[in-house]
Amino acid sequence: MVSPFRHRIRVRFSDCDPQGVLFFGNHLTYFDVAMTELWREAIGPYGEMTAGGVDSVVAEAGVRYLAPVRFDAEVEVSVEILRLGTTGMSARMQISEEGRPLSEGEVRYVFVATGGNEKTEIPAAVRSGLTRYLVEE
Amino acid sequence: MVSPFRHRIRVRFSDCDPQGVLFFGNHLTYFDVAMTELWREAIGPYGEMTAGGVDSVVAEAGVRYLAPVRFDAEVEVSVEILRLGTTGMSARMQISEEGRPLSEGEVRYVFVATGGNEKTEIPAAVRSGLTRYLVEE
Amino acid sequence: MVSPFRHRIRVRFSDCDPQGVLFFGNHLTYFDVAMTELWREAIGPYGEMTAGGVDSVVAEAGVRYLAPVRFDAEVEVSVEILRLGTTGMSARMQISEEGRPLSEGEVRYVFVATGGNEKTEIPAAVRSGLTRYLVEE
Amino acid sequence: MVSPFRHRIRVRFSDCDPQGVLFFGNHLTYFDVAMTELWREAIGPYGEMTAGGVDSVVAEAGVRYLAPVRFDAEVEVSVEILRLGTTGMSARMQISEEGRPLSEGEVRYVFVATGGNEKTEIPAAVRSGLTRYLVEE
Repeated sequence: MVSPFRHRIRVRFSDCDPQGVLFFGNHLTYFDVAMTELWREAIGPYGEMTAGGVDSVVAEAGVRYLAPVRFDAEVEVSVEILRLGTTGMSARMQISEEGRPLSEGEVRYVFVATGGNEKTEIPAAVRSGLTRYLVEE
Repeated sequence: MVSPFRHRIRVRFSDCDPQGVLFFGNHLTYFDVAMTELWREAIGPYGEMTAGGVDSVVAEAGVRYLAPVRFDAEVEVSVEILRLGTTGMSARMQISEEGRPLSEGEVRYVFVATGGNEKTEIPAAVRSGLTRYLVEE
Repeated sequence: MVSPFRHRIRVRFSDCDPQGVLFFGNHLTYFDVAMTELWREAIGPYGEMTAGGVDSVVAEAGVRYLAPVRFDAEVEVSVEILRLGTTGMSARMQISEEGRPLSEGEVRYVFVATGGNEKTEIPAAVRSGLTRYLVEE
Repeated sequence: MVSPFRHRIRVRFSDCDPQGVLFFGNHLTYFDVAMTELWREAIGPYGEMTAGGVDSVVAEAGVRYLAPVRFDAEVEVSVEILRLGTTGMSARMQISEEGRPLSEGEVRYVFVATGGNEKTEIPAAVRSGLTRYLVEE
């Protein structure tokens, strides 16, 4: 049984829109922030991989919005790795507040040569680090 | 045969990330900008509906990223209405440059009382305006 | 001798632009985040003041950029209150990394009735809380 | 007598904050968008200069906020060049709606080698293009 990675974010005023809630596109920003923190913990600073010639790009993303995420709330973003392929991976994210889910979604990543769009294999150290958050299904 | 609504956006520097392309979450921003313009053309300024007591919130959104959207490109965002229900609707968006698709996605909206989350019926004038962009399937 | 309020921020990927650094407008975002945190510590959640009928708006802001603020850096934002008037106040902010200043600026705020632009007096509890960060000059 | 460059922007929902107005940091974004358009008209696409080895960075920026910039307003951003030095320049911007000023500010730029922070001379073609918006004082 794998525990998801968890990262806390305080909702910024400027992340919110005139409805007083996190703008719907910014849920993806929060997913991205949490993935960067998972990376730091599991592998190291993201910039080390790009400096080493490998980067990742997003191929697909989706969000289901369950309840408003309000300005100044302290939310938790959880991340699990759903699939770890040869040149791509998928992650499942959830934003929650005090255990109550506010949104959930998935992001599919493809690994590429830094600065380009050519697919490349996931480096061994990256694969190894991500495996601890890989959901066994 | 219905023609989708089309709106042109010049990609801002601040919308792009260190990869030099439109940040993946900002594709949803561009979908939102295009929907606001469809609204203006088909119904009127969006604020008139909210002032009249009805607002919309996003329930679900998804994007498939096909090619990079670069700083300073002038892209076209097209919008079609896929479904027009009693209290909700779905739209399909595409970002393209010179006819080449760069991303495509869907956004599902729910209509609510302004300032709340209680579902409400789509106003007749809104329904009527949106119908011209409703895809017959 | 007053110590400034200090708040740490991890630089988000989406806050940065194609030059790979914090977009120049987003320095003001970081100043705003730090002020919200100062508020929480010195007075309470910002939303309590607005719920009580008083809000603040920015009347003037300025930034001097000294060195790049890079993606994934953990920076410190310090805030000092420079002036605490009847209906307005000014703050001085600095963004630094490991003690090295990266930018510095000022923001002037005016207190207004929530939802409007009519000037109002700074509430006593707010004034009292902010005083501990007021620079004696 | 020089006419300022003028560019129209429709205020995006996501550019606005829970006060229902353009977030104060995003006035600088609008200044930046207008400068990019001035560049296109006076010199060419901004990317041509950076591809040629010269880029610009912001050294200082300031804004005075005069009135709220509301969601969905169509505003005009005007730009004048105040000073054109050897390795730097300053511009004055104003955001207005139907002739009524909403904010005004200045941005000081320094020219650098692309990808670095080393000061470099303003290219002749850039200088020549910008001169038509240089205020004679």
